[in-house]
Amino acid sequence: MGFGKVFIATSVDGFIARDNGSLDWLPAPLDGEDYGYAALMDSVDGIIMGRSTYETVLGFGEWPFSKPVVVLSRTLTAADVPEALRKSVQVSNVAPSTLVATLREQGWKHAYIDGGQTIRSFIEAGEVSELTLTRIPILLGSGIPLFGPLPESIVLRCEYSKHYPNGVISTRYHAL
Amino acid sequence: MGFGKVFIATSVDGFIARDNGSLDWLPAPLDGEDYGYAALMDSVDGIIMGRSTYETVLGFGEWPFSKPVVVLSRTLTAADVPEALRKSVQVSNVAPSTLVATLREQGWKHAYIDGGQTIRSFIEAGEVSELTLTRIPILLGSGIPLFGPLPESIVLRCEYSKHYPNGVISTRYHAL
Repeated sequence: MGFGKVFIATSVDGFIARDNGSLDWLPAPLDGEDYGYAALMDSVDGIIMGRSTYETVLGFGEWPFSKPVVVLSRTLTAADVPEALRKSVQVSNVAPSTLVATLREQGWKHAYIDGGQTIRSFIEAGEVSELTLTRIPILLGSGIPLFGPLPESIVLRCEYSKHYPNGVISTRYHAL
Repeated sequence: MGFGKVFIATSVDGFIARDNGSLDWLPAPLDGEDYGYAALMDSVDGIIMGRSTYETVLGFGEWPFSKPVVVLSRTLTAADVPEALRKSVQVSNVAPSTLVATLREQGWKHAYIDGGQTIRSFIEAGEVSELTLTRIPILLGSGIPLFGPLPESIVLRCEYSKHYPNGVISTRYHAL
């Protein structure tokens, strides 16, 4: 069974952030609507993210995750993680499939995969089985792309697609 | 009022054809379903397409369009158009906005814009007001992209989004 789950907002032209990382184009929150985020987080055993996403989240001040987090980085070490987070944050520099095997041994069934480069590498490695896109009605023209090159095409199955009053379309795909 | 209308199938990762132009990833026709294509064609006065799309269509053998067609090309001339098509096909090498002004003088209110490069240049020039995407449930990994760089972001309004039993999602956007 598939391991990785992606849940991310993207522009109609496929960017997850502007070139400078800005998310200023995301719509204002829709009255109590989380587009399925909480349910998705409930369904995973932890989160795998890249260093850049990790540092952005650290910058929020308050750590928002109650589940274990693995930060993928070639430069960070466990010592770089603030002491208050060492119980829940570990650093890893192994390839996606190796990490998935290790986490499965530890009992993880699913992980939420976050951050552009991390998402692309997990999709490329065939380790993403569920992809929920929150499509924002804007063309950015440039930015950080959600998708990248693949060794071969991946056929998807659409589980649902929901159209919100603010023009956002949330679509869940599964890799076949 | 906006002039150009785009109606095109795209993969989830934003490609309209494989690198070699192949459309082998498009789904089999869905029982009598055209995803709104005929209604869209009814709503335009003609079609503007690039040379590459024109040559692909010529290769079909039978010319499928009953409305006037403008082929954008820097290399073709009117003499290159087969005699049987000269009444309905004209060649132009002017910029999108110049062409739109000329066609408006001739009474055109809307044109269907087809072909990757032509679509990108018309969007970039601000000459596309309606964008109907038929999103096919596949990640191609590479190919001919639908979207390109823009001078600035374009906010869209979603008119509708429809989810078909084969996983295709048809969404119509308007440029604000």
